[in-house]
Amino acid sequence: MNVTLLAGGVGGARLAHGLDLALGAATTDTPSTTTPPAAPPATPAHPLTVVVNVGDDTELHGLAISPDIDTVVYTLAGLNDEERGWGLRGESYATLSALRDLGEDTWFTLGDRDLATHIVRTQRLHRGEPLSAVTAHLARSMGVGPRIVPATDDHLATLVDTPSGRLGFQEYFVGRQHADAVLGLHFDGAETARPGPGVLDALAAELVVLAPSNPFLSIEPLLAVRGVREALATARGRRVAVSPIVGGQAIKGPAAQILETLGHEVSALGVARIYADLVDVMVIDDRDAGLAGPIADLGLAVHVTDTVMGGPPGRERLARELLALA
Amino acid sequence: MNVTLLAGGVGGARLAHGLDLALGAATTDTPSTTTPPAAPPATPAHPLTVVVNVGDDTELHGLAISPDIDTVVYTLAGLNDEERGWGLRGESYATLSALRDLGEDTWFTLGDRDLATHIVRTQRLHRGEPLSAVTAHLARSMGVGPRIVPATDDHLATLVDTPSGRLGFQEYFVGRQHADAVLGLHFDGAETARPGPGVLDALAAELVVLAPSNPFLSIEPLLAVRGVREALATARGRRVAVSPIVGGQAIKGPAAQILETLGHEVSALGVARIYADLVDVMVIDDRDAGLAGPIADLGLAVHVTDTVMGGPPGRERLARELLALA
Repeated sequence: MNVTLLAGGVGGARLAHGLDLALGAATTDTPSTTTPPAAPPATPAHPLTVVVNVGDDTELHGLAISPDIDTVVYTLAGLNDEERGWGLRGESYATLSALRDLGEDTWFTLGDRDLATHIVRTQRLHRGEPLSAVTAHLARSMGVGPRIVPATDDHLATLVDTPSGRLGFQEYFVGRQHADAVLGLHFDGAETARPGPGVLDALAAELVVLAPSNPFLSIEPLLAVRGVREALATARGRRVAVSPIVGGQAIKGPAAQILETLGHEVSALGVARIYADLVDVMVIDDRDAGLAGPIADLGLAVHVTDTVMGGPPGRERLARELLALA
Repeated sequence: MNVTLLAGGVGGARLAHGLDLALGAATTDTPSTTTPPAAPPATPAHPLTVVVNVGDDTELHGLAISPDIDTVVYTLAGLNDEERGWGLRGESYATLSALRDLGEDTWFTLGDRDLATHIVRTQRLHRGEPLSAVTAHLARSMGVGPRIVPATDDHLATLVDTPSGRLGFQEYFVGRQHADAVLGLHFDGAETARPGPGVLDALAAELVVLAPSNPFLSIEPLLAVRGVREALATARGRRVAVSPIVGGQAIKGPAAQILETLGHEVSALGVARIYADLVDVMVIDDRDAGLAGPIADLGLAVHVTDTVMGGPPGRERLARELLALA
C-alpha cells in the first residue's frame, strides 16, 4: 500500500517515523518466495512519501535553511534530538559562536553538524539544483528510506500578520517565540508556486494522511501550492487527518492560540471543520471522544485513539491504526 | 612611517605580526603631549598595509576560501594556530565530519570556527560586496589594526603545471601536498585583474617589504595583477625583500623545489636574481653571509641578519631591522 503524509515539523516527523516503522516492518514480514530474478532488481520505491511544508524556509548567514524538511529527515534518519524536538542529537555550536564573534546576528540556533546540511543544500541550490533534488540527496546520504518531497521547488514563504505588523515566519516563530497574536497568514508566492515533482502523484496514494501538524503554519502553506488543495479534495484514496489539538490544547507550538485568534473553536472539532472538505476520516484523541458525534455530523468518519505518540513504539502503533483505516 | 608588506601565507603573516608589533610599540612610545583635541580624533590610519596574495583562493562546499588572507588576519588577531601555521587555535571539526557523512569530499581541512569566516565572506560576496570590503569587515571584527588588502578584487587563480598536468592551486598544495614537480605557473585572470582598492597607493609607502613568502606561489601572483609589478619597479620608497631561502632550504613549503625545477639557483642569491629589478635591499640570513658579495654584484644592498623569526619577539626584532633600513 502506498501512503502519503502531508507534514510540517515535529508532529509530522514523528508520524512519518511511525509510518516508516509500520510499513518497513510490513515489507519485511512478507518476503518474496518466488524464483529470484536473473538480475538484481532496481531498489523498490518506498511505500511512504512525505510531502513537507517549505513555508518556514529561510536564509540565514547566506545559507538556505529548510527547518521542516530537516526535522523530518533527521527524525527518519534517527539523528534528531528527541528531547528538543528539532536539530541533531549531541550538537556543538562552535561555528555559531564564531559567527557571533564576527558580529553576525545569531538568534537562530544552528549546530555545527546541522550547518553541514545547510552548506550542502546552499551549494547545490546555487548550482541550480531544485530543492527536491537536494532534499533527495540529503535524505539518501542520511540513509532515509521514504521519499521526502518539498511541497514546492518554487518560492513560498509564510508571512504572519500580527498586531506588530507582518512578520517573516522565523522572526515570528523563533525570534519572537510565537508570542504575537496571529491575525492572519499570507503565503508569499503561493499563486505561482508549482507542486514539487511527485507531489500530485503522491496525493493519488491509497492512504493520504494529514499529520498532526499546525493546520495554519504547516498544512495550509502546503495546500496553498497551486493545485494541491484541489488534488487532495478530489483524491480517490482514503484521506485521514490526525488532530493536533488534544483536550483543547496543542501538543506543541501555537496551534491553539492561532485557532482562537482566527475565530475557530479550539478543539479537535474546530480542526475537523477546517479539514471537512478535504478528508474522509478524522482521528481524535481518547480525551476528545465526546467530540466524535459533532465531527460525524460534518460527514466525516471518526477514529478515536491515543494520538499522543511519544517515542517510536507509540508512533508505530498510531501509524498501524492509520494504515488499518485505508 | 608608512609601511607596506606584500605577503602570502605563514611567512608573510609572521612578518606582518612583527611589523604590527614594531609599529604599534613605536606609536605607544611617543604619546601626544599637546592639548587634547575638543572632539575625539578620527581613528588614525594604521601605518601598516598588508597586500595579500589571492591566487590560492578557492571555493569548497560553495564557500569562498581565502587561505592567505585568513592566515594574515588570524595571525594579526592573535587567533592563529602557531604550531600548525594555518587556521585557528583550539579548533573543532564537527561540521567537517558531518560534511564527510553527507558524502562531501573533505580533503581540505576546515575548522568549525574557521567556517564562520568563510560563511560570512561567502554571504557578503554573494550580496555583491568586493573581497576588499569583506576582508576589511572580517579583520575589523577580529580586532586587527593594520589594513589588509587583497591583491585584487577580481578573479585571479594560480594554476600549477606539473608532469601530471595543470592543477588548481589547492589541489597541488593541499590535495597532493605539493609533491609534484612544478614545471610552470599560470595566473588565470591576471591579464584583466585590477589591483584592489589601495594597492597601488600602498606601493608608494616609505618602506615596501616583500615578505619571506614563496616567490612563485605568493609574490608572483600578486605582482601579476595589472600594474602592480610596474608600480613596485618604479616605487620611490625603500624596497626590501626578505629571502625565504635560508642555507639552501625553504623555511616552509615547496619554494626550494620550485626554484630548482624552474631552473633557478636554490639559494638567497637565486631569490635575489628574481627580485633584482624590483627591490633595493635584499635581507638574507646569517647562514648565507657568503652570498652577500654576489648579491651586491646584482646592484642590491644586502642586510645580513637572523631571518628565521620564530615567535613574536623574533618577528618584532626582524621588523625593527627592516624599519631601520628605510
